[in-house]
Amino acid sequence: MSAIDSTAILPKLKFNADGLVPAIAQQFDTGEVLMMAWMNAQSVAETLETGRVCYFSRSRGGLWRKGETSGQQQRLKDFLIDCDGDTILLKVDQDGVACHTGRRTCFYTAARPEGLTEVATVLVSPDELYKK
Amino acid sequence: MSAIDSTAILPKLKFNADGLVPAIAQQFDTGEVLMMAWMNAQSVAETLETGRVCYFSRSRGGLWRKGETSGQQQRLKDFLIDCDGDTILLKVDQDGVACHTGRRTCFYTAARPEGLTEVATVLVSPDELYKK
Repeated sequence: MSAIDSTAILPKLKFNADGLVPAIAQQFDTGEVLMMAWMNAQSVAETLETGRVCYFSRSRGGLWRKGETSGQQQRLKDFLIDCDGDTILLKVDQDGVACHTGRRTCFYTAARPEGLTEVATVLVSPDELYKK
Repeated sequence: MSAIDSTAILPKLKFNADGLVPAIAQQFDTGEVLMMAWMNAQSVAETLETGRVCYFSRSRGGLWRKGETSGQQQRLKDFLIDCDGDTILLKVDQDGVACHTGRRTCFYTAARPEGLTEVATVLVSPDELYKK
C-alpha cells in the first residue's frame, strides 16, 4: 500500500482521554478478525506512512511495532474509520500468527452452552516465536 | 444459539475502570466487520441468555438492545473472548444494516492515498430507519 499522509486523517479520529483509539486487525482476504489493540496519533501516522502496522502498547507505554520481536508483522492493506471516528479497522496481511500464544487469532476462546471452548490451535510455540 | 449461563464467562473478562469491555460485531457468514461498541457485565449476561446482542450505551448510560428502535437486531451466532480477556468478538447475524447512517457497516470511510474515501453506500435512509 502506498504511503498515506496522516494530516487529513488524524483530525477525523476521536482519541480517548489517554490519547488512544482501539484498532481491530482483520486479515484482508479471509476476513478473520485477528486481534484488537490500541493506537495513538504517532502510531497511526507511522502505520499510514510505512504500511507496517504499529500500535501503542499500554503495558509498555510506547510504540509497538507489531512483529518487531516475533517477526510476525502486519502489512497494511486498508485503513478504515468508523462512523463516529472512535474505532479503526485495519485490513492487514498477517505474517504467521497474530497472537502471542502462537495462534493465528487472539479470539480462540468461545463461550458455548457446554462451557468455554478453544476454537483455534497453537501453530507456533511461543518459545520459538520469541526465541526464548 | 442456545442460552448460555454467563457465570463461568464473566470472571474471564477484564472490564475497564468504567466496567466496560469493547465488543466487535462481525457478520458470521460473510466475515464483514460491522461495528464496535461496549458491553458491561449485565449486557454480556443478557446477550448470552437471550441470543440477541445487547450493548451498553456510553452516551445514554444504559443498556442498548441493538435494534430496539431501528428493528435492525443482531442475533448471536458465537461469542469469543481474546487471549487477555479484554475484548469480545461477537459473531452475529445482522438484520438489515448495523450503522445508524443506514450503511451495512460503520466502517465505511477508508484512508487512501487520494484522501478519505467512502466505501459503503447508504442502503436505508436514517429517517426510515428511525421513523422520524
